[in-house]
Amino acid sequence: MIRTMTNNQSVRVHNFNAGPGVLPLPVLEQAQAEMLNYAGSGMSVMEMSHRSAQFEDIIGRAESNLRALLKMPDNYKIIFLQGGATLQFAMAPANLRPDGGSADYVVSGAWGKGAFKEAEKSGKARVAWTGEKSNFNCLPLQSELDLDPNAAYLHFTANETIHGLEWHTEPVPPSGVPLVCDASSDFLSRPFDVTKYAMIYAGAQKNVGPAGVTVVIIRDDMLARTPPKLPIMLDYKMMADNKSLYNTPPAFAIYVVGLVLRWLVDVGGLEAIARRNEEKASLIYRIIDDSGGFYRGHARSNSRSRMNVTFRMPSEELENAFAKKSAAEGLVGLKGHRSVGGLRASLYNALPMEAAEALAQFMREFQRTNG
Amino acid sequence: MIRTMTNNQSVRVHNFNAGPGVLPLPVLEQAQAEMLNYAGSGMSVMEMSHRSAQFEDIIGRAESNLRALLKMPDNYKIIFLQGGATLQFAMAPANLRPDGGSADYVVSGAWGKGAFKEAEKSGKARVAWTGEKSNFNCLPLQSELDLDPNAAYLHFTANETIHGLEWHTEPVPPSGVPLVCDASSDFLSRPFDVTKYAMIYAGAQKNVGPAGVTVVIIRDDMLARTPPKLPIMLDYKMMADNKSLYNTPPAFAIYVVGLVLRWLVDVGGLEAIARRNEEKASLIYRIIDDSGGFYRGHARSNSRSRMNVTFRMPSEELENAFAKKSAAEGLVGLKGHRSVGGLRASLYNALPMEAAEALAQFMREFQRTNG
Repeated sequence: MIRTMTNNQSVRVHNFNAGPGVLPLPVLEQAQAEMLNYAGSGMSVMEMSHRSAQFEDIIGRAESNLRALLKMPDNYKIIFLQGGATLQFAMAPANLRPDGGSADYVVSGAWGKGAFKEAEKSGKARVAWTGEKSNFNCLPLQSELDLDPNAAYLHFTANETIHGLEWHTEPVPPSGVPLVCDASSDFLSRPFDVTKYAMIYAGAQKNVGPAGVTVVIIRDDMLARTPPKLPIMLDYKMMADNKSLYNTPPAFAIYVVGLVLRWLVDVGGLEAIARRNEEKASLIYRIIDDSGGFYRGHARSNSRSRMNVTFRMPSEELENAFAKKSAAEGLVGLKGHRSVGGLRASLYNALPMEAAEALAQFMREFQRTNG
Repeated sequence: MIRTMTNNQSVRVHNFNAGPGVLPLPVLEQAQAEMLNYAGSGMSVMEMSHRSAQFEDIIGRAESNLRALLKMPDNYKIIFLQGGATLQFAMAPANLRPDGGSADYVVSGAWGKGAFKEAEKSGKARVAWTGEKSNFNCLPLQSELDLDPNAAYLHFTANETIHGLEWHTEPVPPSGVPLVCDASSDFLSRPFDVTKYAMIYAGAQKNVGPAGVTVVIIRDDMLARTPPKLPIMLDYKMMADNKSLYNTPPAFAIYVVGLVLRWLVDVGGLEAIARRNEEKASLIYRIIDDSGGFYRGHARSNSRSRMNVTFRMPSEELENAFAKKSAAEGLVGLKGHRSVGGLRASLYNALPMEAAEALAQFMREFQRTNG
């Protein structure tokens, strides 16, 4: 089996997709090995009752590894939900904003804007800051935030996948205002202090698993805010009280998330992965900064994302040539999002250092021959 | 690789789980083989952009096979959603029942009741019939339905997984009232006439794939009913207009559904699978009926499900002994749901005839030694 895996590895591309994105090879290998017979059960995880002891063990271990990785206090609950961050955009206000209340949103990019627009549909939402005028190329200083001291919560987006911006320290809400965070695209890419947050949510498909499951971390006291008569699938309290098993959960996706969490523990936890991520991002940003303007970063230096490096080139023709040639050489997923244009290299947890080095090498070579 | 598969097959159990349930072995084998490198892409389907040509091909082929299997007219749209049937319980009334309108529900078991209760939370819902008094052991005759000629729609549950009841022909709504169906647990187990329905939905984890994706089939004109300002993830029109790709879909689950649909085509389509399902169910019901009362079916004969055979035995001790001994012999998942008690054998599409024969053999032998 090992030999087959090694063969498989050699045909795998360098995957810079923005999400769904690259998964750790050992995770895929284990999912492959267990596909027809999970741990002697005689069946796939996909065929297993979600009420079985074996699945309870799978979800239980995922939770305890997540708790350990984040050193999470007991007054935080973990829930596995469906519907991606987009469903959280609606669930957060439905649960946490009382009737007549207002919530504050930092609109730092496409995702912050999406969250704000969903919140606005169902009640009052305020823009605490927006970077739209400069096409979301920077994040605000704390002093630039226009904060409502009575807000139901303050919402921000930890990492803007499309624009390539990442908060290096959380915004500070007014005293008593809970902090709510969409951490979809940099979740578990570095240590962070859970106790600063009332709620954190993350679609799994960037750093922690396949699409189809969302990890929600919510502080106990927030669950008391859930109003009666919400649809079950939109009700944090119902889902937390039932430990993500009110109805059939996305069992296989949770299983893969569990494998990724175990892999994170194995590679040394969040400090270790943060160092690796920092190295990969520094390598690529250095190429950009040393290119004499051939590569131009979209984000201002102090707002740069370590997860999604967005950059432009002297012409769209060159950008297209870059995307095409890199793909032909096995560096996949580098074309930027249409709203920013140019190129984007996503450097999630599971992207190996070798892939970042291959990209750096390609960028140098491309500039040499086209610069 | 083939040899490994054959070895794997020999360790697999007979899987009678009620859902998530057994999947076709060739589907799991293909998912296993493609886990690290899908079709030469150099990545897993879990790592693939949902905007890529390869994923569009995956979802496109799933749709076209589903259309072919059901001979579905063009004025029906297929959408892949998340949140299981439970989210559909909320989405159907949110989209299809106008302000002030009322919807009719046939409450035929645990799932029909669940659908009704969700609909009741957000507006007016009427019980057109309920089997609760007799602990849901039968389905109504058409003449027993109390139907509202002005209902926004009539909702029924094609198969009650917990109680083991299945409609053999659809209820007929009053003229002009759309028929909406939760087909989660017998979807694609036999041919049916799509044109009788305004909408059909099915959580995949019984007959068509893993948990985490819901197949929705909806007639064009129903989409005009979606009101403004619904949360995006609850909006049929938004999801249909974006061909299930408004945001990141549960890509791997959709891929596996696609493999199952392809398998259904390969084994001869819905007529062929219906014959097989009929054979399996007849075999088990015959054992029950010929047991002289040792095995007692929960459902009345004319309401029996071909998917979930629910039965009791002379004592709970015997039932527990049956569940324990069968599991020890590799017949897994036969314990009944706590609300009905006794035993339940789920005989979904992917359950091989040999498994049903093994169960029949076990039942005869168990009666011989304990009867």
